[in-house]
Amino acid sequence: MTPGPRTFAVIMAGGAGTRFWPLSRRRRPKQFLPIAGSKTMIEETVARLRPFLRNSRILTISDAAQAKTIRRLVPGLPERNVLVEPEGRNTAASLILATATVYLRDHGAVVFALPADHLIADDELFLNKLGAAARAASEGDVIVTFGIPPSYPATGFGYIQYADRGRRRVGGELFYPVLRFKEKPGLELAREFIAQGRHFWNSGMFIWRADVFARKLETHAPDFYPFWLRMLGALKRRDRSELAGVFREIPATSIDYALMEKADGVLMNQGNFGWSDVGSWVALADIWPKGEGGHAVRGEAVFVDSRDCLVYSLNKLTAVVGLKDIIVVDTPDALLVCHKKSDQKVRDIINLLKKRQKNEYL
Amino acid sequence: MTPGPRTFAVIMAGGAGTRFWPLSRRRRPKQFLPIAGSKTMIEETVARLRPFLRNSRILTISDAAQAKTIRRLVPGLPERNVLVEPEGRNTAASLILATATVYLRDHGAVVFALPADHLIADDELFLNKLGAAARAASEGDVIVTFGIPPSYPATGFGYIQYADRGRRRVGGELFYPVLRFKEKPGLELAREFIAQGRHFWNSGMFIWRADVFARKLETHAPDFYPFWLRMLGALKRRDRSELAGVFREIPATSIDYALMEKADGVLMNQGNFGWSDVGSWVALADIWPKGEGGHAVRGEAVFVDSRDCLVYSLNKLTAVVGLKDIIVVDTPDALLVCHKKSDQKVRDIINLLKKRQKNEYL
Repeated sequence: MTPGPRTFAVIMAGGAGTRFWPLSRRRRPKQFLPIAGSKTMIEETVARLRPFLRNSRILTISDAAQAKTIRRLVPGLPERNVLVEPEGRNTAASLILATATVYLRDHGAVVFALPADHLIADDELFLNKLGAAARAASEGDVIVTFGIPPSYPATGFGYIQYADRGRRRVGGELFYPVLRFKEKPGLELAREFIAQGRHFWNSGMFIWRADVFARKLETHAPDFYPFWLRMLGALKRRDRSELAGVFREIPATSIDYALMEKADGVLMNQGNFGWSDVGSWVALADIWPKGEGGHAVRGEAVFVDSRDCLVYSLNKLTAVVGLKDIIVVDTPDALLVCHKKSDQKVRDIINLLKKRQKNEYL
Repeated sequence: MTPGPRTFAVIMAGGAGTRFWPLSRRRRPKQFLPIAGSKTMIEETVARLRPFLRNSRILTISDAAQAKTIRRLVPGLPERNVLVEPEGRNTAASLILATATVYLRDHGAVVFALPADHLIADDELFLNKLGAAARAASEGDVIVTFGIPPSYPATGFGYIQYADRGRRRVGGELFYPVLRFKEKPGLELAREFIAQGRHFWNSGMFIWRADVFARKLETHAPDFYPFWLRMLGALKRRDRSELAGVFREIPATSIDYALMEKADGVLMNQGNFGWSDVGSWVALADIWPKGEGGHAVRGEAVFVDSRDCLVYSLNKLTAVVGLKDIIVVDTPDALLVCHKKSDQKVRDIINLLKKRQKNEYL
């Protein structure tokens, strides 16, 4: 189903992202890279929403440098929809600023809070569910989220525990009461979650009515509510320095921690639309189509006695000999060669480069 | 000791060499790369001889394109010393042409036939031995060669079986009668050679008097002697097309096979001057100085959880994560990532590229 006309999307594009180094850099994080498809992830995120929302209904939030990139990549957005954070302070601050902005345009409007760098395979199903979620959120005193059916006992995601009892159907979709948001678990606990069922991954996507968001803050996050009120004031007065002052006082934490873990009246819909947060080179290797030998290749590569490698090499020919499960990423000024089992350690490279003050590579 | 004034070096620079791809290419083989030191191997080979030989006494032999490179890298050589082969036909043809050229300048001159792409660690010892070898070769009806004390049962080198009995001392050096030249053995036979002692590696370096070379051909390589005579004739007449015709008729085989395996009167001196033919990336990794983690690096590289890698990366930063015994060679248009145990398979890349007609990378 389609959402009502009182709907806005807020695309969170402020992430820094070090896990795709050397392709991603401080000034060129994942959401601005054509990493999963032929367009950048933020372009794909906007394009996905276009059947539902005109440009005037799509907002982005990021820092000033990223906002410049957004204006270039998504030129149709009205200037006032490209929100700029005075500094990166995690999603609680971002979403208080963005939701307050929407609130002042239409108190009762529904907000889709969506990360700019997630991959969704089935756009049509996603939009259908988003429409139903908008309806559910507009009807009552609830916040809606998508839970992702877990495909393995991940320790890199938070989990949502939900109940069957009390579920309701809106717009053809089932919405389950959320019992608890749970932080990233250890492996043993993650296995328990999977064994129990009733635990889905936290996608970080939320749907709320602006006024309901405010009410939930007031009731369940009283530490944060004063920032909401002061943010509204600064926005009404169009006082940038006041706004920046308020923003910088908001604790730098996630909306999950600030609000969702504490709120009641949260509903979960099953996000079985082929979601991936594309959190690492290995996750990307799973998404790219595989050729002979199980290799995932962007650019030009040849292989001898090798299997299951990922090669990103747009500017030259890459030859791989006698290797299995290797990631090779060539960029004009930096090259990564990494075993798949070590892809989480790409961050250690960043730290090493920082320590050696090789800032030109960050 | 120093050699007499009647001495010439012939530097064999015609090799094509595919084992250092992507650094080495058809038009830029190993001898023209600064692969072992800061200068190209041919520059180092010439520099090594300079204490002994003026430029007028140093000849090179290669194809026309390589000759152009040689003139650039070793600008001091007289034009008539840069010999050009009509085509690459292995060392028998090269050395018949080169030795005939020397013969016409001085029948009794001693020729040092030396590959352009070998590494020698102790230049002083090498020169001493070369001087003694020149003396031994000038005194009698013998050809002198250096045998390399084997450091492992190599299957990639030919072997020289020598006798203690009949050895003689010339210029402070011992020269052993060669019993047999033996082709590259299988592993089992190579192990036998090592166990027996009396088998050294064939270095491919030879020292002979020009007239003795002719006599040895006449006696032991009667199939090749007519080419020698016809080559002399063409050179005397300065008839290039005649020379090319003769050259192209010479069977494309090595001097080892054409003459050395059949000749008697061959003496071997122990070439314990830190020789390496630098035949592969792994051989190079052995030669380059190692840093922390056992890595051999040219250019800029950082490592996380890695050991014993070789990185050649002059134009960018290379980061290696979670890998052991990996070779990474970055060039402007091609990149190699290879396990050390597979370095002999770099040739398969060349074959693959040929098959796919990617000639720009050859």
